[in-house]
Amino acid sequence: MTTSSSVLNDVNIEAVGGLIEAVRRNPSVGDTTWAASVTWRGGFRSDAQVRDFEPVFSDEPQGLGGTDSAPNPVEQVLAALGNCLVVGYAANATARGIELTDLRVDISGTVDLHAFLGIREGHAGFDDIRASVHLESSASDEQIAELHQHVLSTSPVGHTLRAAVPVTIELATA
Amino acid sequence: MTTSSSVLNDVNIEAVGGLIEAVRRNPSVGDTTWAASVTWRGGFRSDAQVRDFEPVFSDEPQGLGGTDSAPNPVEQVLAALGNCLVVGYAANATARGIELTDLRVDISGTVDLHAFLGIREGHAGFDDIRASVHLESSASDEQIAELHQHVLSTSPVGHTLRAAVPVTIELATA
Repeated sequence: MTTSSSVLNDVNIEAVGGLIEAVRRNPSVGDTTWAASVTWRGGFRSDAQVRDFEPVFSDEPQGLGGTDSAPNPVEQVLAALGNCLVVGYAANATARGIELTDLRVDISGTVDLHAFLGIREGHAGFDDIRASVHLESSASDEQIAELHQHVLSTSPVGHTLRAAVPVTIELATA
Repeated sequence: MTTSSSVLNDVNIEAVGGLIEAVRRNPSVGDTTWAASVTWRGGFRSDAQVRDFEPVFSDEPQGLGGTDSAPNPVEQVLAALGNCLVVGYAANATARGIELTDLRVDISGTVDLHAFLGIREGHAGFDDIRASVHLESSASDEQIAELHQHVLSTSPVGHTLRAAVPVTIELATA
């Protein structure tokens, strides 16, 4: 049991509160830009560089022609959704004074490979994605249900997937 | 310079061809399901388990209340897009007999934090995503342009982001 809100759930809620105040004072502070640079390593292998972190590797299963050395891109999308939901629950539980004792998100999604393989035109992406949230807390069912709804309504990756996002992909001129 | 199509671009194009034939013969082979399981590690830290691979870590920058130990979820989405595009170029270049000598995809995207922070309701996800593809090959500009258009029309992660995907997120009953 934690006794100070500053360490509840090990979340630095003051930093979040400070950011909220900063964005309220100056809305442009809320305009954030994120980036990644991905380098091909031969075959279906690549690695993604984000800021100064260790590169994140990607490959495809052997059945899809890869060498199965790392999660593939669609699995990475599911992982990103789960990671984003975890931040949402941790942040908003802490803001409500709710202590979380355990949190796990299991995610699955289906992709029909016909479009990717060029067998027919159409949607090549996920047809649906399902997440099951395992959350342990002493909070009431009503508090957890309200927390859950708030997280769903504010999840950056959740909204990215649920909405049609403009994506521009251009060949750089040499 | 490679001399056998089986090793062009280090891509196992026979495996891809075999999969295409298998899906043509039995369309249900193209119905694929992917999964990830994400576990909260306190604060805004989590790790995503995909199959038997090493877990992929996630965190948030300090300005957002995290401890900045790993790429955050929206950066992971951009990385997944780049990794997916790389597979698309490598697979489809190889199928066309085009040798790639270098390939890098730089991606950025903007997120307005107002919705995530609960300051106002609305779209919490990426407002736009831009990718710049640096591709080196001896193929003609026309061949590369055709390859590029084919990759855009068949990219699983690209289509996932550009379309509104049904996402169901439910609290598991204890």
